[in-house]
Amino acid sequence: MTFHGISPDIRAALERVLGQSGVAADPTSMAKYLADWSGDHHGSALAVLKPASVAEVQAAVRLCGTLGLAMIPQGGNTGLVAGAIDIGTTPGAVVISLERLNRIRSVDADNFTLQADAGCILQHIKDAADDQDCLFPLALGAQGSCQIGGNAASNAGGVNVLRYGMARDLIVGLEVVLPDGDLWSGFSGLRKDNRGYDLKQLFIGAEGTLGIITGVEVKLSPKPGQIETAYLGLPSFESAIALFRQARRDCSDLISAFEIIGSECMELARLADPTIVAPVDAPVHVLIELSSGAAVELRSLLVDFLAGVMERHLVADAVLAESGAQAKAFWAIREGLVEGQARRGYHVRTDLSVRISDIPTLIAQARGFVALEHPGWISQAYGHAGDGNIHFNVLPPLDLAEADARARGVAITARLYDIVTALGGSVSAEHGIGRTRQRVYWTGMSPVHCRLVSTLKNAIDPAGLMNPGCLFPVTETCS
Amino acid sequence: MTFHGISPDIRAALERVLGQSGVAADPTSMAKYLADWSGDHHGSALAVLKPASVAEVQAAVRLCGTLGLAMIPQGGNTGLVAGAIDIGTTPGAVVISLERLNRIRSVDADNFTLQADAGCILQHIKDAADDQDCLFPLALGAQGSCQIGGNAASNAGGVNVLRYGMARDLIVGLEVVLPDGDLWSGFSGLRKDNRGYDLKQLFIGAEGTLGIITGVEVKLSPKPGQIETAYLGLPSFESAIALFRQARRDCSDLISAFEIIGSECMELARLADPTIVAPVDAPVHVLIELSSGAAVELRSLLVDFLAGVMERHLVADAVLAESGAQAKAFWAIREGLVEGQARRGYHVRTDLSVRISDIPTLIAQARGFVALEHPGWISQAYGHAGDGNIHFNVLPPLDLAEADARARGVAITARLYDIVTALGGSVSAEHGIGRTRQRVYWTGMSPVHCRLVSTLKNAIDPAGLMNPGCLFPVTETCS
Repeated sequence: MTFHGISPDIRAALERVLGQSGVAADPTSMAKYLADWSGDHHGSALAVLKPASVAEVQAAVRLCGTLGLAMIPQGGNTGLVAGAIDIGTTPGAVVISLERLNRIRSVDADNFTLQADAGCILQHIKDAADDQDCLFPLALGAQGSCQIGGNAASNAGGVNVLRYGMARDLIVGLEVVLPDGDLWSGFSGLRKDNRGYDLKQLFIGAEGTLGIITGVEVKLSPKPGQIETAYLGLPSFESAIALFRQARRDCSDLISAFEIIGSECMELARLADPTIVAPVDAPVHVLIELSSGAAVELRSLLVDFLAGVMERHLVADAVLAESGAQAKAFWAIREGLVEGQARRGYHVRTDLSVRISDIPTLIAQARGFVALEHPGWISQAYGHAGDGNIHFNVLPPLDLAEADARARGVAITARLYDIVTALGGSVSAEHGIGRTRQRVYWTGMSPVHCRLVSTLKNAIDPAGLMNPGCLFPVTETCS
Repeated sequence: MTFHGISPDIRAALERVLGQSGVAADPTSMAKYLADWSGDHHGSALAVLKPASVAEVQAAVRLCGTLGLAMIPQGGNTGLVAGAIDIGTTPGAVVISLERLNRIRSVDADNFTLQADAGCILQHIKDAADDQDCLFPLALGAQGSCQIGGNAASNAGGVNVLRYGMARDLIVGLEVVLPDGDLWSGFSGLRKDNRGYDLKQLFIGAEGTLGIITGVEVKLSPKPGQIETAYLGLPSFESAIALFRQARRDCSDLISAFEIIGSECMELARLADPTIVAPVDAPVHVLIELSSGAAVELRSLLVDFLAGVMERHLVADAVLAESGAQAKAFWAIREGLVEGQARRGYHVRTDLSVRISDIPTLIAQARGFVALEHPGWISQAYGHAGDGNIHFNVLPPLDLAEADARARGVAITARLYDIVTALGGSVSAEHGIGRTRQRVYWTGMSPVHCRLVSTLKNAIDPAGLMNPGCLFPVTETCS
């Protein structure tokens, strides 16, 4: 079946519900909603719907239900697994963008909660919390354009999960338009509420397959008055794990980030910013951040901790940020990796998790396999070590044609998934399943798990119109 | 329908699966499984089944399914809402006790995780974590007899929720026998895993209505090397809330407990232990606990914090524990409230939550109503203020006959629920719904919410044999 645009009848029906400004159907105005961030995919859609209110989302969902149109809910379109765009598997769908639902509804600093429309940009929420001397701790590279509804739907992670948890842990309430157009409102402002099934858990991480999130209520934390950052050089990944264990014990719950970076990644960071110089010269780098209120002697805590671990030779070299600007420069290295990879073009990108103690094994096995079987390809290992989460990426040789690289990349990815699976790990620590990891998901889970997941989907979305092709294959293949 | 014991045929069939020691059917050996902790209820059952392995749980569930027998899963039977015993609404059911599944399966101190059978006593898990220099932070009065499976099924709370979260937040994996007898194993040891629907969330807090939890994997924390405890006297609940806000900002994430106690509760604590003397003389008491690793100057942090808030007259009087024994004495007051109430006999017991800033209003309104309309009844307000969770209990006059007190108690409870509902709060902050809060639950939730909850139940347990009468009415009354 091929779709050549939207029929005039359907377009008119959609415009009656959403107004002319709420329906985009020509290629130019749809373009930005159909391109994915990595450039790996370009989708298609009958139309992009842009409801301006919760009631309009409900009306659009009801109309699509009547017309039998599949719906792809979309936030900031910054996901990495094609969860919010068709990549050839969901033809004839409409994209429903939440971008016009972009208000902060309320901030309650006394209660440490904030309510916002799903389309609110994450950075705007962080700013609104900051204005009230609070912190909304969800922090990821895309925070300037991703939306809180998408963060909830994908259960976003990021660099502060270690201290504050994933999006799931930061959400106290949700508002969702169900597949039949009914509105489920799970807002209460309560920090603790144990009344039966916790329905919001169903929609968090469901990647839009059970309904469309229209509002999110999040937990705020007190804004830390002090932040101390250090950039460390270590002899090995093993010592990085030993360092983490010690840091958890010595630094109480004040570690807000513990990122590890293989030194080979430096070249990548310099692709994003050629002026970057590594603060240390060592095989493995660790970026550690502590934060606290004003009453803790945070700097001396970090200094004493580092003195202890250097004496034990876990850390070879350490540079403490002497200013906010220097801390920012450390983070620019970490953030430069993502941008540098994007500039480099196509590459194998993974999001693996294992037990924390298995991180060195994972990296050694993955590096060994790449070096042996794919000479010329460059392994890159970095990630959120405290969560057991490693982004092990592999860059093709510069002289390899992209088509060849992509073909080889499929085989490399499959092999990396085999390695992590053999270690009892996950092929998606934080990015989700979407459309790109569907096959490995369904083959990796037990038949009982697959059956339960399908039972839930069929119970909540019996017509199968919510984001088909995402998480679930269009044709059910679960065995 | 009246049940007069179990038929010989059914008993024989159950014994073929579980052995003679796995089936109790006479009143004496069933007694402890049918009495509830509060003494408010005494249940009935055809038999109590005591499987000794996960495979026996599966076999028992399959057999009950074939026989059409309703099943009531039971942990330590310490719940407060009759979630694990029939109170006349579930005749002809069997209780399935998990008590023989009581092994700690593994402790992984490097990964900060622990796996245990569902029937493991909470205290044993805390001890096993402690042996590895780790902390399992779930802490509640019943920890010496409650079981981790019941903690998971009821999403238990307790005194450390503020710092470490509810049971839901502490669980990384579950193992569940589904209503058809199949086993879903959601154990991975991973701290971060974002592969599609997070099925464990479905079973946590479901109070045994969707399956029987047979194993739990929990997150451990580093064991705090230091604990500082102070008992404070305050002029009002308003100042307690202002104090909490300041404490959250000044003490970073190091507050492990922040309990408020109305001074009128002291008499109750003395019922449990007549030697108890309140450390302060003030209308409102606060028990605050900070904990951290060795590197934080914890005591001076607390001393400086208290000096600041006393200067601002938020706190009138403060006693710092000078020893572990003195800290224990402070906690004996808090824990004595629960025991004192139990000794006092029948009383109105609630578990309310509101926005933190609404706590003073809730208490004032509740106290006002009791004083005005039920003279002679004694209001007691205490709870986990940092979670917005207040146990507002009301003791009948000593000279009132129990039957009269119970009748009046129903009316008082209903009115307290009205007060909390008008404030947008919850009638169950941490205890769950079970059989005793079912009516207020179903009338309090929106029709869309009720429909979703019923959809899930019907999808996972279509025969309705898992804990009928708990959470759901036996006859569906949801409108």
